[in-house]
Amino acid sequence: MAKGVKRILVLGAGRSSSTLIRNLIRFSVEEGYSVRVGDLDLALAQSKMEGFESAIASQGSAAFKLDAGDAAQRKSEISAADVLVSMLPASMHALVMADAIEAGCHAITPSYVSDEMAALGDAAQAKGVMLINELGLDPGIDHMSAMAAIDQIRDEGGQMQSFESYTGGLVARESDDNPWHYKFTWNPRNVVLAGQGGSATYLKNGGVELLPPHRLFKEVTRVEVPGEGYFEGYANRDSLGYADIYGLNAVDTLVRGTLRGVGFCAGWDAIFQLGMNRDDARLRWPADMTWRQFTAAFVPGCGPNSSAEDVAAGVERLTGADAETMGRLHWLGLFGEDPINFNFGSPAEVLQQLLEQKWALAPSDIDLIVMWHRFRYVDASGQNCTLRSWLTLRGEDYLHTGMSKTVGLPLALAARHIARGDWNFSGLVMPTERRVYEPLLAALALEGVAFSEDGGA
Amino acid sequence: MAKGVKRILVLGAGRSSSTLIRNLIRFSVEEGYSVRVGDLDLALAQSKMEGFESAIASQGSAAFKLDAGDAAQRKSEISAADVLVSMLPASMHALVMADAIEAGCHAITPSYVSDEMAALGDAAQAKGVMLINELGLDPGIDHMSAMAAIDQIRDEGGQMQSFESYTGGLVARESDDNPWHYKFTWNPRNVVLAGQGGSATYLKNGGVELLPPHRLFKEVTRVEVPGEGYFEGYANRDSLGYADIYGLNAVDTLVRGTLRGVGFCAGWDAIFQLGMNRDDARLRWPADMTWRQFTAAFVPGCGPNSSAEDVAAGVERLTGADAETMGRLHWLGLFGEDPINFNFGSPAEVLQQLLEQKWALAPSDIDLIVMWHRFRYVDASGQNCTLRSWLTLRGEDYLHTGMSKTVGLPLALAARHIARGDWNFSGLVMPTERRVYEPLLAALALEGVAFSEDGGA
Repeated sequence: MAKGVKRILVLGAGRSSSTLIRNLIRFSVEEGYSVRVGDLDLALAQSKMEGFESAIASQGSAAFKLDAGDAAQRKSEISAADVLVSMLPASMHALVMADAIEAGCHAITPSYVSDEMAALGDAAQAKGVMLINELGLDPGIDHMSAMAAIDQIRDEGGQMQSFESYTGGLVARESDDNPWHYKFTWNPRNVVLAGQGGSATYLKNGGVELLPPHRLFKEVTRVEVPGEGYFEGYANRDSLGYADIYGLNAVDTLVRGTLRGVGFCAGWDAIFQLGMNRDDARLRWPADMTWRQFTAAFVPGCGPNSSAEDVAAGVERLTGADAETMGRLHWLGLFGEDPINFNFGSPAEVLQQLLEQKWALAPSDIDLIVMWHRFRYVDASGQNCTLRSWLTLRGEDYLHTGMSKTVGLPLALAARHIARGDWNFSGLVMPTERRVYEPLLAALALEGVAFSEDGGA
Repeated sequence: MAKGVKRILVLGAGRSSSTLIRNLIRFSVEEGYSVRVGDLDLALAQSKMEGFESAIASQGSAAFKLDAGDAAQRKSEISAADVLVSMLPASMHALVMADAIEAGCHAITPSYVSDEMAALGDAAQAKGVMLINELGLDPGIDHMSAMAAIDQIRDEGGQMQSFESYTGGLVARESDDNPWHYKFTWNPRNVVLAGQGGSATYLKNGGVELLPPHRLFKEVTRVEVPGEGYFEGYANRDSLGYADIYGLNAVDTLVRGTLRGVGFCAGWDAIFQLGMNRDDARLRWPADMTWRQFTAAFVPGCGPNSSAEDVAAGVERLTGADAETMGRLHWLGLFGEDPINFNFGSPAEVLQQLLEQKWALAPSDIDLIVMWHRFRYVDASGQNCTLRSWLTLRGEDYLHTGMSKTVGLPLALAARHIARGDWNFSGLVMPTERRVYEPLLAALALEGVAFSEDGGA
């Protein structure tokens, strides 16, 4: 690949692309590449490039209206690019990657490697094209920071015994004004459906464990993050698969999970026990239904005419909720007389409408990303050791949230590495590989995305 | 359709076909039709026809080896028949029905009308072919007995207020020698996965209610069946759809469910809470694992080395199981040292292996079918009334179980009605229609499948 000015193509300019696009344009003059940003919403793509007019003009960068379903447009854009960053929905990545291979264009995404994607590895190899996936926050920074620590422990002759890792997209203390300690910086629907994808499986003290969805928010691990205080973690779906991914086949504990503020899980467990987050039945609700009446639908023995007190007492009895948890449900307005105005849909859809109001990130709010790892190992001298490693990162503002920075920066930095010709890999490449994580973690640290470490609990 | 001797074709000679096939052959001479029975297992099909050699010979009836995936064989058999009874897996019915329409052959099945099946209605109508589905026990006898009562209440000027209905395939008291009061007369896998298909939705006291899967076995209704004592019912998935099916759009209570012996639901709830019935994660289990170690995998804090006492204490704490429930789990051997010999699979698959031993129907065992309806209505004089209606039916033996009789007899009787030319319907026909249920309920009563009624609780 020895064309003149390198061309980086970004497909998708949504919430997670803000910092990615800004970083790419900011360094485009110095490093000598152009950036094209395509989105179905042209104005959105243009807005993400604002403030860099002279850089844009000097490099011939531009926004354009993208119809991702239009194969001709997609192929024409991709064949004119040297590096593609796909921020399209995950289901489109294999399609776009196939175009990239055909065009001889390197491609990176923040999404998990699907089976379809994995099948493209050989073709990419043959064409000298590199495909890098799982290069956002989680998956992404988690892979890189974990493997850096694990490789170092091994390099020094240590034997891994245990790996625990939790990540959360949360709200910074200064913007935390609700008893759930949570606001949306991510797809609200995914948050409402959290845990419903299936049982969690992990390894603890030498035995495989399975936790069914309805117990996920009951079995919570307290996690201390120095400087930020305590959080609670609940287990993600498949931790066992990470034994192969990280080469941890002799450990006796292996758990990955999601972090939330203290008390969130007890509150969400109450909702989970009631079934208010279910998405498996779409119901016709009465036109004038109130939130109290909606809640009553999950409390056998209560009905549309039950009082708020009776419904609340039923919830307390069914879920075992304590006073603080009941306070969180009251704060949401679940026993109140506000009308719902939602005539047909699943409980999850109805609840999401409420949560989008209550947990909205205000324009002045600052979000907080927290990632926390704990490695236990026996060192070369036979000593039991603990290494704790954590990242906390605040957003700058409503546009450049912590989420947008931690998802976008690994992608931007990788795209620039490729444009500069620093990497000449081909085929499917993973961020767990030292040749990827070493330069990227160093570059992330310069952008303020840096881990702290100690030997603590 | 005015051929000579009518020809009835049965596809599938499994467990539920025994009584169907016997009834068809038994009346074949008197009513003048032949019967062909096809199954992948020719010996099985032949065994189901034993004892009627002269009837078989006189009518030219026969068993044959069927490869249901062989379209040429299927089409050739179907085009030579006047009435088809399909006992194939439900997923094959639409395919077989399409063949039947093409051949001008009437067709009946015990399965729910799928969307694919519904789409065949017009073509069947145009060809003068009748397709009758949902003609077994549940669905089947439930539809017919419920609609007979509802239509009678309406004919007499009554207004339906409430409909509750529960059905179970159980074991007769004289063969009930385990603390779960249950043995398999039905697909064990479906029993192990019970309730995991999704939330139950129903109407109670004027309000819609939703019960998530993990609470299904906690919210149990006690049902008294005169002569058989008490049972417990848990709600089936979608009761709300029956408002349209039975024309019950003004009732304030509408629940359908499954019956089990008293105590079963508390026991199954403990298993459900633990997640031991989950089918959403396939795990690699240690080669020498015991049942105690398997159970420990569902008890956070316990591991492969925990004692039986510790694992049992953990189960008690997590599930709130009382002494009787713990006794049921102990009876299954879940805390014992027997080896599992199951290296890879979901918890549901491991557990099914155990239950197939523990809940096996012995050759000398007698099963019991129980169906129970309760109708509440206001009669023409404005009086609040209750009608309770129930069916209990014991199997004859291991072959002609209550399950085989109640699934097979409605189909056999309908096939004979059609062969005799008593019905000249076309298109999709439902057992909820009076023209279907009236003659079939009368014929079922002659076979000993008869409902009792009272005005009781």
